[in-house]
Amino acid sequence: MKNSNIIVQKYGGTSVADPKRIKEVAKRVNSYRKKGQDIVVVVSALGKTTDKLVSLAGEVSKNPPERELDMLLSTGEQVSVALLAMALYELGQEAISFTGAQVGIITDSSHTKAKILDVNAKKIKDELKRGKIVIVAGFQGTSLDQEITTLGRGGSDMTAVALAKVLKAGMCEIFTDVKGVYTADPRIVPHARKLENISYDEMLEMASLGAQVMQARSMEVASKFNVPMKVRSSFSHEEGTVITKEAKDMEGVLVRGVTVNKTEAKVTVCDVLDKPGEASRLFEKLACAGINVDMIIQNVSKTKMTDISFTVEEKDLPKVQKIISKIVKEMSARGVRYDKKIAKISVVGIGMRSHSGVAAKMFSILAQEKINIKMISTSEIKISCVVSEKEADKAVRALHKAFGLSRKEKK
Amino acid sequence: MKNSNIIVQKYGGTSVADPKRIKEVAKRVNSYRKKGQDIVVVVSALGKTTDKLVSLAGEVSKNPPERELDMLLSTGEQVSVALLAMALYELGQEAISFTGAQVGIITDSSHTKAKILDVNAKKIKDELKRGKIVIVAGFQGTSLDQEITTLGRGGSDMTAVALAKVLKAGMCEIFTDVKGVYTADPRIVPHARKLENISYDEMLEMASLGAQVMQARSMEVASKFNVPMKVRSSFSHEEGTVITKEAKDMEGVLVRGVTVNKTEAKVTVCDVLDKPGEASRLFEKLACAGINVDMIIQNVSKTKMTDISFTVEEKDLPKVQKIISKIVKEMSARGVRYDKKIAKISVVGIGMRSHSGVAAKMFSILAQEKINIKMISTSEIKISCVVSEKEADKAVRALHKAFGLSRKEKK
Repeated sequence: MKNSNIIVQKYGGTSVADPKRIKEVAKRVNSYRKKGQDIVVVVSALGKTTDKLVSLAGEVSKNPPERELDMLLSTGEQVSVALLAMALYELGQEAISFTGAQVGIITDSSHTKAKILDVNAKKIKDELKRGKIVIVAGFQGTSLDQEITTLGRGGSDMTAVALAKVLKAGMCEIFTDVKGVYTADPRIVPHARKLENISYDEMLEMASLGAQVMQARSMEVASKFNVPMKVRSSFSHEEGTVITKEAKDMEGVLVRGVTVNKTEAKVTVCDVLDKPGEASRLFEKLACAGINVDMIIQNVSKTKMTDISFTVEEKDLPKVQKIISKIVKEMSARGVRYDKKIAKISVVGIGMRSHSGVAAKMFSILAQEKINIKMISTSEIKISCVVSEKEADKAVRALHKAFGLSRKEKK
Repeated sequence: MKNSNIIVQKYGGTSVADPKRIKEVAKRVNSYRKKGQDIVVVVSALGKTTDKLVSLAGEVSKNPPERELDMLLSTGEQVSVALLAMALYELGQEAISFTGAQVGIITDSSHTKAKILDVNAKKIKDELKRGKIVIVAGFQGTSLDQEITTLGRGGSDMTAVALAKVLKAGMCEIFTDVKGVYTADPRIVPHARKLENISYDEMLEMASLGAQVMQARSMEVASKFNVPMKVRSSFSHEEGTVITKEAKDMEGVLVRGVTVNKTEAKVTVCDVLDKPGEASRLFEKLACAGINVDMIIQNVSKTKMTDISFTVEEKDLPKVQKIISKIVKEMSARGVRYDKKIAKISVVGIGMRSHSGVAAKMFSILAQEKINIKMISTSEIKISCVVSEKEADKAVRALHKAFGLSRKEKK
């Protein structure tokens, strides 16, 4: 049961980049309040504040303790919420700001990447009843032993989703600097179309594949608890993209969007002995070091030797190289190749579940464009191909066109 | 009973102005820890952070609510404590930072000028036992209903004194950008001498009279609970000035120091009807508006009319003018004169209690210098004269010399 009179709105860093922008957000929030809705606002730190604080930490310590990093970083959102409350008062609207700790966002004790365990919504409900707009610092919480924790990059989305869930909000709106979820990145595909709606599953694939509209983990939680979401721009009054449970008519659309991710690098370990356990040893070590491995392929071997390729975030590459250089000797592999100049292109759509042939069509489009596919991975609702980075944009445009996603070409 | 192994050290904004200074403070704190002492550090916001935050508030609101101002300003100290903890870890010393709320600094609910009601020292003691240096955000606390409060300008001194009291610290050291308490401001009197010790009462008079070394209210509390204090520089290793209960030998010194305060303005209401209640009406209105009136004099009247003069902080003058302009009509006074170009010169010393003639000597010195005295006020241990601002420095130098306070002229 949704209490549809409550709306949770989350404003990201670019939406509150400076005092002028904060005043804009205050006006917008106030206009919703005027329509009689109860508003809970979640705010990120101003613009590049978090980056600045991280670099301040870097000036006093090469390896700052994570507990102290959380003490430091959580101040960013505290500044934002106080300023937004002031800006609302200035408009004659009562408002009250809260830190994550004050409002009872209880997390585990994993500093810098805490998970929300519970939210005590009483304080928020009380203040809403008093007619106030409630402003909550995103990205932060408190552990049971009263330590300040943060939820990791993009954590303000998680705060918004968690609040929307416990408050049974009618809508959780994510305000950002894009107007919604597009069929492709408009900087690459000028004809990309804004989607009116999208399913949680599709959005999750889009988010984790590099359409950086919303934190993927928050999307999972929203999907799990069926929190109605909307992604929209704080710089325009256009309606955004609604994210909901799968709807019947969604299946009619084969491909919802095309995404590209250029942040990964490919690692190939050559001539590994093709026997059980060799690959697992490698990936265990990487997992222990906290490195996220995305795609993995192992060539079918005709000899006793095989090549193992996988992709990791490019920023993790130095760590990976360190680990691999040891392992390679133990595995008596012939060598390692690293390729940073790759891009992962994906087509996403829940319609794929009931239609075959999407993969075949994707490969044939790329072949027509003479684009070489280096790796392939598939899930129920997406197909991803790794291609050379310099061919990525061409690939996205070709797929976007061939799958009929452009404006004026509505399927 | 003092637990002399605990030292509370407070570092002001200039002491932690930037990451380089924070690293210096970390080294200093660590050196004390190495001597086997338990250290609790209270830190102010970095350099001009508080001013910057206030101006940020001013950009979104002409009259920000005080509760939200406290939310905003308290972030300044939170940044400092986290950075200092990181810097200590970098030196291999375990440390832990706390906000005022986390460490149980309970205040009343008077936002922006809260008073400390209680300090729960358990958390600090636990962490000291674990061998950590405990770092506490100055200037802030939490009310019983979990609202973040701040203690007013200079409030970090209060935090330090309050912690020193409940921890029964052997010493509460106030680190600042001056080397101690001087017989006069060295910028005015080059031969001014640093005092080795001073009594609470003298220090209190010096602090409230414009020797801006320590917050006056903190000094009162230190005196009340007999907290041993030291004022010293974070930029040098020189010993500072110890502030203690009155000692016998202190009485031998007639005048401990000469202070000057140029921040006040004089207001004269002319030709007020000299009947009971006229003056009280005026000062009641000022008190209601929260304006601090310092010196008051009423001329002896030969007619039925009298003049009333008083001094207020120059920054309060616009408010005062507003109030007075109404009152003057009601009181049918002849007019009002305002004089911003004044300075209050004071000589302070507990020796005055048992010696007479200090006032006479002060007046005669000023007369010799042809400096006109506009107002006079006295207490048991100080005599203050208001003079023209342009003659203030000359007056201070003459008094400093005549009372034998200069270096090499020890009485």
